[in-house]
Amino acid sequence: MREGLSNLKYVFAPKSIAVIGASENPSKLGNVILKNLVDGGYEGKIYPVNPKYQELLGMRCYPDIKKLRGKVDLAIFAIPAPLIPKVADDCGKNGVKGLIVLSAGFGEVGNNKLEEKLGATVQRHGMAMVGPNCLGVLNPEKRVDSIFFPFFKFGRPNVGDISIITQSGAVGTCIADLASYYRVGFSKFISYGNGTTINDADLVEYLGADPKTKQILLYLEGTKDGKGLLKALEKVNRKKPVIVLKAGKSKSAGEAAMSHTGNLAGNYLAYQAAFRESRAIEVDSVIELFQVANIFSQAMPKGKKVAVLTDGGGLGVLAADALEKEDLEVAKFSRETTRKLKKVLPSYVNAVNPLDIVADSGTETYEKALKILMEDREIDSVIVIILFQAPAVDSRIIDVLVKESDRKVKPIVVVAVGGEYTKNNMKVLDSYGIPTYGYPDAAVKSLKRFTDYSLFLKDKK
Amino acid sequence: MREGLSNLKYVFAPKSIAVIGASENPSKLGNVILKNLVDGGYEGKIYPVNPKYQELLGMRCYPDIKKLRGKVDLAIFAIPAPLIPKVADDCGKNGVKGLIVLSAGFGEVGNNKLEEKLGATVQRHGMAMVGPNCLGVLNPEKRVDSIFFPFFKFGRPNVGDISIITQSGAVGTCIADLASYYRVGFSKFISYGNGTTINDADLVEYLGADPKTKQILLYLEGTKDGKGLLKALEKVNRKKPVIVLKAGKSKSAGEAAMSHTGNLAGNYLAYQAAFRESRAIEVDSVIELFQVANIFSQAMPKGKKVAVLTDGGGLGVLAADALEKEDLEVAKFSRETTRKLKKVLPSYVNAVNPLDIVADSGTETYEKALKILMEDREIDSVIVIILFQAPAVDSRIIDVLVKESDRKVKPIVVVAVGGEYTKNNMKVLDSYGIPTYGYPDAAVKSLKRFTDYSLFLKDKK
Repeated sequence: MREGLSNLKYVFAPKSIAVIGASENPSKLGNVILKNLVDGGYEGKIYPVNPKYQELLGMRCYPDIKKLRGKVDLAIFAIPAPLIPKVADDCGKNGVKGLIVLSAGFGEVGNNKLEEKLGATVQRHGMAMVGPNCLGVLNPEKRVDSIFFPFFKFGRPNVGDISIITQSGAVGTCIADLASYYRVGFSKFISYGNGTTINDADLVEYLGADPKTKQILLYLEGTKDGKGLLKALEKVNRKKPVIVLKAGKSKSAGEAAMSHTGNLAGNYLAYQAAFRESRAIEVDSVIELFQVANIFSQAMPKGKKVAVLTDGGGLGVLAADALEKEDLEVAKFSRETTRKLKKVLPSYVNAVNPLDIVADSGTETYEKALKILMEDREIDSVIVIILFQAPAVDSRIIDVLVKESDRKVKPIVVVAVGGEYTKNNMKVLDSYGIPTYGYPDAAVKSLKRFTDYSLFLKDKK
Repeated sequence: MREGLSNLKYVFAPKSIAVIGASENPSKLGNVILKNLVDGGYEGKIYPVNPKYQELLGMRCYPDIKKLRGKVDLAIFAIPAPLIPKVADDCGKNGVKGLIVLSAGFGEVGNNKLEEKLGATVQRHGMAMVGPNCLGVLNPEKRVDSIFFPFFKFGRPNVGDISIITQSGAVGTCIADLASYYRVGFSKFISYGNGTTINDADLVEYLGADPKTKQILLYLEGTKDGKGLLKALEKVNRKKPVIVLKAGKSKSAGEAAMSHTGNLAGNYLAYQAAFRESRAIEVDSVIELFQVANIFSQAMPKGKKVAVLTDGGGLGVLAADALEKEDLEVAKFSRETTRKLKKVLPSYVNAVNPLDIVADSGTETYEKALKILMEDREIDSVIVIILFQAPAVDSRIIDVLVKESDRKVKPIVVVAVGGEYTKNNMKVLDSYGIPTYGYPDAAVKSLKRFTDYSLFLKDKK
């Protein structure tokens, strides 16, 4: 484990935080950070640091980290880049264990020497540094939050077990904001920017050992330590899923990545090979990063056989297409299941998969049919595609789905397409841990990743 | 043009409607239809028909279509299938011009003879029939609405110029409901179910000649008239875009389609060839059907060169990846454009494409940069990826985008990922005709379809 890595715990759960460059000017980073810590309910000690002020937001303000007597676990930097190595050194001398450096102006704009100097200083003191050029850390459990986005624009997620490691603050924010919208919980959010000392590989390993993290999302443009990353992925992915989105696959994107976090995006084929070898779960889009994480709260599928249950025929047909495309199976219902289904379904419904109970069928038919599909051991997963617009389906369908999902025998995912009424119902389902999707193909794609990972774990045993 | 097709105008814009099987029981179709016509503000004459009642919702109820003296343009059927051919004959005798048959129970459940009988009757009288086994028609302009879904569950779209022809009522409803949510307007919605007399090919041709329809969406499982459909697509697609989603590509999906609308899904390769030959725009998912339609409200792109403007670096990198994947070009900024950009951008921003103005830049930087990109004739389209969560971007960005989009010189599309605040801003943009996307890849995919179609029209000239 890299020097300083063990001190990451002080970044995620500090008993005290110094804000270097705290300010009373609302348009300054150092003001927003300070305010967000207070408004977010951080319970430890907060030390504003800035020679310009005696007091900030009713707190005593210190002129200098050196003048600060209290023990400081974490220092968050919101001062110009050239000043940072010196102050970081002062932090080290004063016993600070962790740093979050938000400021840009290092390797990503060609100031490599400044970045090297900062890195050397931090490592000499054995500190754990996140950044520079990043959004830092968000830990909902400890209410540690260095993200300088206002609460009304960026909803902080609940406490949960998904963690994200992101080279791009923007991408991480988008995912966390979606999670907050759907009330999906997060354990740790780490935007590591240039990753000067602690890099992706270290963070994967660290979260791999974190009992509060059950799945790890990784947004990566390029790594400085390909071998280390592969090793970390191989190790961690056997215990908990690591879901990866690699950006900078194309030439022009690679150049953009370089000027973004100063990392070479490198040859995508090499990354792809590493993901395959480590069985890390590679996804194709930023939305999938969220969707795949979300599906892991469901019971693990034992195999590839999927049942589709719907009251909107065409959507069932589209799901069957998607299943075949993704190499999952449209389960063939057993005689027993067909017999049971026929007993509860209206006479004009065909008891075949995809099972279209048609738009006149209501919540009760859904309930009976879903129960039968859940009981069939030959069915590994169930996709429920709800036409919420149909008159016979009411909101009690949510209770039905939550009840069946809570039995944890196989995954249930929901697809629905529509406006206000439909979207509201989807939000509620997500908040109960049932992942929803805006079209059949997306659900199938997530389910495929989940199934593959489940089969990989089974193989390994 | 097929027999009765010219009478479709009575289906879309009837001066009077008879509801066959009108009912006072709220759980009956015949009640919902009647109520929806009244609540929806249909301005023509409504005739409830049912021998059981004298009066319904304060309207005189007729025992029989034969007893009805007033001229009836359109009859909507909500009675059991076996009774329908006879009543359809009565309608014909009484001068009814159009029929919408919602009832199921025909070819899709093996009652082929009943369906043939109905078809023959309808054609003998030269009537235009939509259905059976469908949701019928929605025409926001004339407030004609046979969709038996309650208003609070299914939002009816505004008046606009997108029309949809759908073999699945569910799929059509989902798209129209989305359109209503994003305040995107519709001209005509036609769920044609089994398509016994008037089929997909006829409807494509009919809407091709409809001046109020500017783009046509087609959801297709299988057609009875492949050659006719190809011919219609070839003809219409040269005047206005026809966007097609073909379902039932796989074997199990094909079987499901058969029991859904009684149509053979057939060999997908043959369909694909027909779409290519006619240059119909084939999409891969139900959500894309909506997204691609929506992008056509923008100015047409003259070529493949795309500029990406963002305040969220990682999202720009992902967009560049997607552009290369979809064979669009990440435009290389001209010297002139670079010079102009440098003048307005902060010194730490690289004036390259994708253009990452970084999260501290605000709405004004966006405005200046966007204007420069819009003025560059070498740029064919602009993708604006907004990190709405960033503090410096405010809602005035919407005014900026609307203003630039209104100049109609090249398409602007917006990408944003996030929760409540972000989603609200996206909704507003959509309502102004600026299509929004939940991730970069989706925007690029739509833009690719749009660009290809634009180049096809240019080639043709």
